[in-house]
Amino acid sequence: MSSIRVDMTMSLDGYVTGPDDGPDAPLGVGGFRLFNWLDKRNDPGPSGEVYADSLATRALISGRRTYELAGRWGGDHHNGVPIFVLTHEVPGEAPPGSVRYVTDVAECAALGRAAVGDGVAMVHGAGAAQALLRAGEVDELELHVVPVLLGRGRRLFDHLAAEHVELELVRQMRTEQVDDPGQHVLHLRYRVQR
Amino acid sequence: MSSIRVDMTMSLDGYVTGPDDGPDAPLGVGGFRLFNWLDKRNDPGPSGEVYADSLATRALISGRRTYELAGRWGGDHHNGVPIFVLTHEVPGEAPPGSVRYVTDVAECAALGRAAVGDGVAMVHGAGAAQALLRAGEVDELELHVVPVLLGRGRRLFDHLAAEHVELELVRQMRTEQVDDPGQHVLHLRYRVQR
Repeated sequence: MSSIRVDMTMSLDGYVTGPDDGPDAPLGVGGFRLFNWLDKRNDPGPSGEVYADSLATRALISGRRTYELAGRWGGDHHNGVPIFVLTHEVPGEAPPGSVRYVTDVAECAALGRAAVGDGVAMVHGAGAAQALLRAGEVDELELHVVPVLLGRGRRLFDHLAAEHVELELVRQMRTEQVDDPGQHVLHLRYRVQR
Repeated sequence: MSSIRVDMTMSLDGYVTGPDDGPDAPLGVGGFRLFNWLDKRNDPGPSGEVYADSLATRALISGRRTYELAGRWGGDHHNGVPIFVLTHEVPGEAPPGSVRYVTDVAECAALGRAAVGDGVAMVHGAGAAQALLRAGEVDELELHVVPVLLGRGRRLFDHLAAEHVELELVRQMRTEQVDDPGQHVLHLRYRVQR
């Protein structure tokens, strides 16, 4: 069975960027703080393992904002897997590489599922994650929780439906071997309960 | 050295109550979902251990809203420890039991520290936690993270300063022995880095 997995790094207080994110500051003011754990992405250990998991996904579903701020990944996020960009407005020019624009969230989820077979489609971007959560299309949450309170910025969990979404914690890993406590990221995987 | 420890239960999306909390619904609509882990508070295991930790604290600092919604705890939260209620307006009637009203956050923190010696003063209530965080008076965060997205309600981390608060994850425990995944609470303790 296919799985749609939201994969996001967030501060303990739930922010995925600092404030005032935009083209000049893709991660917002101070938002780079969230991503120093990626320095360890190629090391053995928890951070290397979760990064390898992300590279093993067979499709990417991205929000438009994340896609643009990331320079459209040059059309290839990893290994040439299909990239479905959820957007309100399809750009006039042809999409680069393996990118396809989709305006409907259910269609986007269906395309992602069809592309991965019994594998995983990874979701990047708070807006796309929220849209897919509202649509009941998220199967897993993989959260990299950074030990910092940012105080403000863009929240991962916002604009959700009022219905509770029950979860099961299926994996937890912590980068204990790193000297700097600021890099002691907690990697949590939850499965959405149906 | 004394320690001021925020001790709060929250959903994975950061809410400590459901929406529309008030005298008729102290935990907000659906907010009771957050507290079923307390069914295990007297069992051996992680939830029993963290609950025992909370009962070992030597003072309580509470926000006014939490205090009122909890029926003022009849003046005794646990073991008769001093209770400092942070409030904008001191009630006209004398406080019950070991309660003292305090209007200044720095004074409230100082009173809590003086009361506990080298022990721990526990903080309950999002408003009090936020005020103490803004004042730089929080030493530890003990969070009981419940595997559910509430979607809305009162957030624990809100109205904070823009300055980053760096943390160190010093303890993590999970209630693995419980059958119901909805009770697989993750108990996380962070120390504030100075």
